[in-house]
Amino acid sequence: LLQYSDLSRAQLMTGNLIKQILNGDVRALASLMSLIEEGDPKLKSVLKAVYPHTGKAHVIGVTGAAGTGKSSLIDRMTTEFRRQKKSVGILAVDPTSLFSTGALLGDRIRMHNHFADSGVFIRSFATRGGSGGVSAAVRKAIHLLDAAGKEVIFVETIGVGQDQLEIATLAHMVVVVLTPQMGDEVQGMKAGLAEIADILVVNKADLSGADETVQQLKALFGDEDFDIVSTSAIQSEGISLLVAGIEKRLSESLDNGKYQSKRLHLCRQELLSLLRERVFAKVAKKIADGSFETQVKQVAEGQIDPYSAADKLARRIDL
Amino acid sequence: LLQYSDLSRAQLMTGNLIKQILNGDVRALASLMSLIEEGDPKLKSVLKAVYPHTGKAHVIGVTGAAGTGKSSLIDRMTTEFRRQKKSVGILAVDPTSLFSTGALLGDRIRMHNHFADSGVFIRSFATRGGSGGVSAAVRKAIHLLDAAGKEVIFVETIGVGQDQLEIATLAHMVVVVLTPQMGDEVQGMKAGLAEIADILVVNKADLSGADETVQQLKALFGDEDFDIVSTSAIQSEGISLLVAGIEKRLSESLDNGKYQSKRLHLCRQELLSLLRERVFAKVAKKIADGSFETQVKQVAEGQIDPYSAADKLARRIDL
Repeated sequence: LLQYSDLSRAQLMTGNLIKQILNGDVRALASLMSLIEEGDPKLKSVLKAVYPHTGKAHVIGVTGAAGTGKSSLIDRMTTEFRRQKKSVGILAVDPTSLFSTGALLGDRIRMHNHFADSGVFIRSFATRGGSGGVSAAVRKAIHLLDAAGKEVIFVETIGVGQDQLEIATLAHMVVVVLTPQMGDEVQGMKAGLAEIADILVVNKADLSGADETVQQLKALFGDEDFDIVSTSAIQSEGISLLVAGIEKRLSESLDNGKYQSKRLHLCRQELLSLLRERVFAKVAKKIADGSFETQVKQVAEGQIDPYSAADKLARRIDL
Repeated sequence: LLQYSDLSRAQLMTGNLIKQILNGDVRALASLMSLIEEGDPKLKSVLKAVYPHTGKAHVIGVTGAAGTGKSSLIDRMTTEFRRQKKSVGILAVDPTSLFSTGALLGDRIRMHNHFADSGVFIRSFATRGGSGGVSAAVRKAIHLLDAAGKEVIFVETIGVGQDQLEIATLAHMVVVVLTPQMGDEVQGMKAGLAEIADILVVNKADLSGADETVQQLKALFGDEDFDIVSTSAIQSEGISLLVAGIEKRLSESLDNGKYQSKRLHLCRQELLSLLRERVFAKVAKKIADGSFETQVKQVAEGQIDPYSAADKLARRIDL
């Protein structure tokens, strides 16, 4: 994608670029995705201009522990959706580490089947840096892909650390990927799964113990509103069943109003995140007059405790 | 620690409790740590009362990838500091996962040497939940341990995801733990290491390749201000050298003023985090009048884009 990112900044504000996005132009999309990662403020007017053309895509979160085969599963589901002539976007959230050189290449290799297909757009986002965190960046990317006509957008994350619950603030539906090896751990995961999952997938069903894991999950969640599907991404088994399950759930939730209330929830989360950003930018300006640094020094010198200093500053910022 | 957490809430506001903390009472400390995790607002007056008694502890961050032996290394360093009759606090940040039952037990087992020692206080914090995130909770825990007379406080984290840079906003000094297996990866980690590390430890020096890794690191960071030490926590080798290195760096930084400017930096980060919390609590009150929900509905119905809606709300919250 590197060759796309040198698109001139001047082009960004042109109506032409908006048109390119709405036409699903890959080059324009890739270029804007780079601007998201850089936190470019010019992006805002593009996002505003394309927003009226969004709201059609279904966003499907795919999460699970490392090594459960999430990327391969997304690759196979993408093949299935493409067979139905649906356009697909894939956003992978890479949990970058100070101590490794990143997982980007891995994703690209695992999803190689679709790189030549202009109906599939793939992009990785690093969890590190970026104003407002990675969720804010992913939301912007979703809007762009939605406006560009992607009908299905996958968001892949690893369910760990402070980031783990954010998938539920981004996606219309969450697929949690497990493996047969998890066996006895499943019991302990009940609360976590109940909190976010719509569909539970036991992937790697080619391994022994898959049926038992499915039975365990069914016993555990017997009375709850989950779909439980077993797949083998590597052998392309169970994929059409999984995709059919996703589509059935989507159409049911559209009929019974759940989709609409989920949409309201996602809008609320996005607006809250944007408002936090705006308010804190204002606060930062307000305390740049030296009042903040004065308090910092007083705290460092032990003249005041940080809680009282924060109260004092908050009072000064008269809301 | 469970038996400690049933301390009556009424006791919390008594001068007696403050005294207990200042005397290093383990039961009182454990009870207040639980209140931190629950985000109890009553904690604030205790923190304010003990704050004048803080500022003596040295906070040492220990970070690195999973499996590098951070906990064992902290265990051995604690033994060394205890030999010097220094009181030690250990705060471990557990990256909880929706998909596992937590690492708490693991930490406790690995640090079992010190459970009977009243001069060592150990506590794990989950990355999940808690207002203001885990950094805010850890900062409060640091102040309590500091007031309770702990002279050295270790904070253990895994350097991954959105949480990875926060250790540098909490600790006076950061020790990054590597292993010989990392060999060729080291080159790619240069920027990440340079950003946060004060001391690089090549742990598991009993494995082959340790000397080569140390040489690689020395070549890579030849001109930078790092200490590079190799240890084998499992064989208790290199530990006193590492502890001596930490103490040397601390006393040098106290002499050349680096410690003081680091302290200012930590105060700034804490005050910023507290101010964010306070300001957003005020904002939440201000938009509870229905103005926020009105905008959410308009966004969900496609009448306005979320960016314009956030701008509108931010203007309404007249700072």
